[in-house]
Formats: sequence, structure tokens, C-alpha cells
Amino acid sequence: MGSVREAWIALAHAVEPGDARLGARVNREGPEVVVDMISQRDQSIPEGVSARWDAAQLDACEQRAASVGARIVTRADTEWPHQLDDLGPRAPFALWVAGAPDLRLTLVRSVAIVGARASTRYGDEIARRWAAELAGRPITVVSGGAFGIDAAAHRGALLAGLTVCVVAGGVDVTYPQAHASLLSRIADEGLIVSETPPGQSVRRQRFLSRNRLIAALTQATVVVEAADHSGTASTAREANSINRPVAAVPGPVDSASSRGCHRLIRDHEAILVCTSHDVEELIPGGLGEDASIGGTSEQGNLGARERQVLDSLPMRGSMEMDALVCASGLRGGEVAAAIGLLELRGLIESHDSGWRLRR
Amino acid sequence: MGSVREAWIALAHAVEPGDARLGARVNREGPEVVVDMISQRDQSIPEGVSARWDAAQLDACEQRAASVGARIVTRADTEWPHQLDDLGPRAPFALWVAGAPDLRLTLVRSVAIVGARASTRYGDEIARRWAAELAGRPITVVSGGAFGIDAAAHRGALLAGLTVCVVAGGVDVTYPQAHASLLSRIADEGLIVSETPPGQSVRRQRFLSRNRLIAALTQATVVVEAADHSGTASTAREANSINRPVAAVPGPVDSASSRGCHRLIRDHEAILVCTSHDVEELIPGGLGEDASIGGTSEQGNLGARERQVLDSLPMRGSMEMDALVCASGLRGGEVAAAIGLLELRGLIESHDSGWRLRR
Repeated sequence: MGSVREAWIALAHAVEPGDARLGARVNREGPEVVVDMISQRDQSIPEGVSARWDAAQLDACEQRAASVGARIVTRADTEWPHQLDDLGPRAPFALWVAGAPDLRLTLVRSVAIVGARASTRYGDEIARRWAAELAGRPITVVSGGAFGIDAAAHRGALLAGLTVCVVAGGVDVTYPQAHASLLSRIADEGLIVSETPPGQSVRRQRFLSRNRLIAALTQATVVVEAADHSGTASTAREANSINRPVAAVPGPVDSASSRGCHRLIRDHEAILVCTSHDVEELIPGGLGEDASIGGTSEQGNLGARERQVLDSLPMRGSMEMDALVCASGLRGGEVAAAIGLLELRGLIESHDSGWRLRR
Repeated sequence: MGSVREAWIALAHAVEPGDARLGARVNREGPEVVVDMISQRDQSIPEGVSARWDAAQLDACEQRAASVGARIVTRADTEWPHQLDDLGPRAPFALWVAGAPDLRLTLVRSVAIVGARASTRYGDEIARRWAAELAGRPITVVSGGAFGIDAAAHRGALLAGLTVCVVAGGVDVTYPQAHASLLSRIADEGLIVSETPPGQSVRRQRFLSRNRLIAALTQATVVVEAADHSGTASTAREANSINRPVAAVPGPVDSASSRGCHRLIRDHEAILVCTSHDVEELIPGGLGEDASIGGTSEQGNLGARERQVLDSLPMRGSMEMDALVCASGLRGGEVAAAIGLLELRGLIESHDSGWRLRR
């Protein structure tokens, strides 16, 4: 293989999303070493991985992405959302992204709005209204592509701002079919994101591994409605496991669609939220009431975390993500969020494969 | 003054409910000493107390109670619910009780169902249904006499079992007037309880001090609906302050009548409950699924607390409440609840001013 970037792309083709065993090895030994082992059919590599490798046609992958209107964003790219690193060995190697906005910047302030496919009017109305309110502030809404709460959230967000749909199959796979026009509108005005190559079908396991991406890409997860023991609960669990705040919306006690929310609140796995403002309060590193994105370069009202990252950067030269995490003493996701804000404010800029203070 | 009992009655007339300063003094020096000081117009006694003392006509008080169909239950009586002692210096000295059932035994397994006067159909329906379900198990329902949730709880409880109404004025004072027939039904089939003498009017302060009684008489408090910063919140606060479990019922986020409940849950001042079974789980010292009240004298499935109290009683002779609290190492309210259960099971009986093992 050639560059590191190509190694990440190769891994994204060969390894099933969320494979923690290979992920740990990649994080330990580096992508290029593991890719070499796969291509040499090292006996420590599972047969399934080798078989997928054979089928991948890696030399044409960028072209194939482009042909479905997508680009590949790898861990080596500046567009990579580093908050995904919080997933550790389960972090994806690359993402397929359809849509114009920059993935990383779009997600600097973002919230996952998730919930039941079998939603009620009550849940749909809350998802739609809160998504519109949050998107207008602006906070990017992230959800899946399912019926019910997911669709209501995207529709609401599109009324006022950006929405990101994380799908379980390839970005070009329309699922469910009834959402064809919604998905194409999202690709036009927002982003469709997947960690599986174009053409890949949706599968039950991929919905579950997709949920970890929704949890990790965003700064907080809100469960609007959920049945007991539902798939939505898995997104909440993923978010909790990487210390992202989780919120749930209460509803009438007799509504089966609120039962999962009530259980999450009762078991202290989610805090209770009643308004979109309650949700906004969960998102750390806010800009403050008076700040306008991309406006002033004044450092006055930075959050503690942003200041910490700013103070960790050298006066000359740039620093890479890993070094910044180390220097600041913060978590990867926190540093990523802070970098996004500092960049939006014009205080830092990306340089080489890291960031530097802007003069 | 004559007996201790008379001293408690005198104090209940002279001191405004919840007066912690005089209450602490009474607990320290004994009721008779403080009553002597009041009757001798000791200069350390506030003028208001002396004035009330003059107006009390103490020699006729038992007669006056009987004339309105009530009896006086003092701290010296076996009918006294000792869980009130958990209020410390704010514990009442005596209660006026209208209705046939024994006050202490009625409250052994009891729950307060409280909430907004401006309730919704949703809240009324839950209060009514849960009260009926709990009363049928049987768990005594306790509430105030107000419109809304209070009334719905009493009406539900009366469908299936016992209800206790704690009023802010005298037991003979009908407030609100529209509840005249409900209150008379409660007096016929359950209990009306007050800590102010007959004829005393309701006042804002008395509603608040009444709320502490509702919290302290019961083993758990459920808030069904409550506006933000409502009077109902004070009952929840009182219950929390004496370590009684507090629960709240969630509802639609747009309902103003659920706002107080959501705040309580969010601030971890109440746990979220969805069914009357969730409420029942909060009540400690349950009889277990198979036990029938007053039935078997078998000691097999006693709770840890009941066993502790049973083991603390001497093999011969009786032991008073205070000594039992000391010997068992439990709280007053816990001992009182355990005593009630043990008595219902026929394992102990009251004797002199204490309890003894039953042969």
C-alpha cells in the first residue's frame, strides 16, 4: 500500500464496523502494519477479513465514492471528527460522506436526536420542534434514517439549519425506500455519513454499530421516545460508555413509547429534559449568549476547555491531535470540540497534520 | 396540670403547629415543665403562646372534640403514630382524629398521594387509579383535602380501602366548602386528622405545616402533578428532609401541571414512578406477597427491621418506644412501622405504655 490515508481506506473496506479486536491492533501497531498483514494473509488475520480484502477493489474506491456523490474521510484527513477517537478500538477507520459541508466543523456543536420508529404524534412533534430550535441556534442535529423520531428530527432540523444522517448501509443505499426524497434532501442540504462502502446493504448488526457512531459524533444524545429494551437504548448506552451526556424526554406514563425514556431516567442513565434549552445546556463548550460563530477573534469569553487547548499550542509551529490531547490533559473528544470552536473563532488554523496559533 | 396526656393537649392548644423553638424545649425538658412555664407566664414564653393559652378553655377540650365527632390522640397514647417523632422539634404534640379506625395501625403501610389543585384529567385519572390500586393491597392513602389531585386520590382510595385526610384547620371545619360531602364520607369510612383544635380556621401557614404531617405520617410520598414552585413541592421537601422516599409522576413536557414533577425528578429530589407497583416498592417493611395481615403468627417472612425490633424486646415485661428505638438502633419511624406490622401479625401487643412479646 501507499500512503497512511490509503491504509485507512483499506481497513475500512476489510474490517466490519466496530471490530474491537482488529481496532485495538490497528491503534497499537499502526494502520500500515495491519494492512500489510492483511495483504500478506498473515495467519493472525481472520479469514473473513481477507475475503473482504479480496473483494474490495481498492484502487477504484475513491472513484466509486465520487460516482455516488460521496468522498472518503479518513483518520488522516483534516475533515476527520476526532471525537470518534473516544471510541478507542471501536473507532471507525474512515467514513463515506455525501454532502457539501465540512464534516468536522459541522459537528463541533451537535446533538443526536434519536428514538423509536413506532413513535407517537407527541414524540414526532417534540423531535420536529426541538430539532428546528436547536438547528437554528445553530446546533447540528444528527440522527439515523429510520421512520418515526429519526425522520421527524431531520425534517425539523431542515427547517432551520443543518442535519446529519448516519446510515447503516452505504451512503447510496436508500433505506427505508419511503425515505428516498428525505435522504436526497439531506444530501443536498446537509450530510449523509456511513462507515461502510457504497453499495453495502443494511444489516441488523450494522444498525447497532451505526448507533455508536451517532453517540460518538455528537456532544450529547437525546432520546425522545423509546419502547422498553429498544435499539434506541443501545445508542444511549454507547453515549454513556464514552461519557457523553444522555437525556430523555418524559411522557404520559401510559404511553408504551415513553417507557424506555422513563426507564433511562429512573435508572439514572439519562437526565430528564423538558425543552430544547435543557438539551442545549448539555452541550459543553458553548459559545455563550453573546458570541457569534466565526465573528470576533477576541479571546474574552472562551470556555475553560478552549482556553486549555489554546494554552497548550506552541507559540511557533503546529501540534498534532495526539500531542494536543497529551499537552492539554483533556479527552480526545473534548480537544476536538475545543479545536472546532477555536478554529471557527479564527484563533487557530490547521497546518500540516495538526493545528497552530493564527497570527 | 394533671397527667402527661393533659400536658400534651395543653401544648397542642397553646403552640402553633411546627414551632420548632418551643418544640425543642418540650423535647428537652418534658411537656409538663413547659406547660408549667406557660401557665406561670414565664418570661421566656412568647406572648402569643400565653394569649392562646388563656383562650384555650382546656378543661372542656375533650368534650369539645367529642361534640364534633373527634377524639384527641396525644404522644402519650398508644394510638400515637410514632413515625411523627422523626420530625424532631417540629413534631406535633397531639392530633384531633375523626373516624373509627385506629390511627397508628391505619398508617403502618401508608403512602401520601399529593399534587396540584389545578390538576389535569391526566393527573386526576392517575391519582384516582393508583389510589384505588394501593388501597386495595392494602396500603392506606393519605392526602390533604384540596381540589384536584388530593380529592381524586381520596375518591380512588374510597373505592377499595382506607383513606386519611389531613386538614389544615379544625377537623370540623369544612374547607373547601365544595368538599363537604367528600369530607363527611372520609370521616365515615376513613379518618380526618388535624393538629389544630376544632373550630380553628385554615391559614396559609397552616397548609405548609400540615404538609409536614402528610410527609411524616406516611412511608413514602408521591407527587402526581405539581406546578413549578408549588405548595406540593413543600411536601416533597419535608419528606426528603426526614428521609422518606419521594416519587413523582412524569407527564407530557408541555403540561404546566407536570413541570414541578419534572423538576423534582431532574434535581434528584424524587424518583420517577410509572405505576402503582413502582410506588409500592418504595414502602419498606412490606408483608411480602404471601403474607396476609393479621393472619399467621409465623415469623418466617418478617423483614429485617421487624426482626430487629422483635429481637430487641425483652422475654418478660414490656419496653417503651424510646427504649425500643435505643435497643434496636433504628429510627423512630422505622420502629413505629415495625411495631405496627408485628402487632398486626399477632407477635407483639401493647402493654402499659409500651409493647411486649405475645405468648
